[in-house]
Amino acid sequence: MPDAIDIRALAAAVAEPYANTVLAEINDHVLRMSVMTGPFHWHCHPDSDELFLCVEGGLRIELADGVVELAPGEAFSVPAGAVHRTSPLGARSVNLTVDSAGAETREVRAPG
Amino acid sequence: MPDAIDIRALAAAVAEPYANTVLAEINDHVLRMSVMTGPFHWHCHPDSDELFLCVEGGLRIELADGVVELAPGEAFSVPAGAVHRTSPLGARSVNLTVDSAGAETREVRAPG
Repeated sequence: MPDAIDIRALAAAVAEPYANTVLAEINDHVLRMSVMTGPFHWHCHPDSDELFLCVEGGLRIELADGVVELAPGEAFSVPAGAVHRTSPLGARSVNLTVDSAGAETREVRAPG
Repeated sequence: MPDAIDIRALAAAVAEPYANTVLAEINDHVLRMSVMTGPFHWHCHPDSDELFLCVEGGLRIELADGVVELAPGEAFSVPAGAVHRTSPLGARSVNLTVDSAGAETREVRAPG
């Protein structure tokens, strides 16, 4: 039987400035862990919603029509097609995402 | 724009011994929060995997071939069709799950 997935331990082992790791599969969706020390680029996933769950640090999610900031224990779902950009709040952010396993990521210009 | 989903605040507001609440949709999947003070019944979801993520207290997941215990920050994915039973470790457990929105739950006898 597989072991429990210890997200804190996996995050603590990340030394790179950015890492994105698949932790588990749920049918045709995936749970990923993202460790960030700087802003990601503006992008969208045309065909998949993306759930964010902040587990360490804080996560800023910019969208075309606003900004949401997540503390640990807070979640937010970005609808399919919505352009967005994530950044750590502070030095480092660890967040989980759930989206379609094969979701396309399309890099886009900053809105506005 | 919708607000962030504050899972700790939502969990703190639950006074019932058991509550299961849909927090967000991710395509045809759902994020739920489950608050438990006693064991659930043995069951399976014939057509959907089920991801568990413990956020408060501890969660014991019994399966036909073993047991896994989750502390906050630990995750485990139960494959579709696998019979399982969850129980809180201690007085109360808060955990998140991700599975198919329409997943059937089939109550089963305890294995063995």
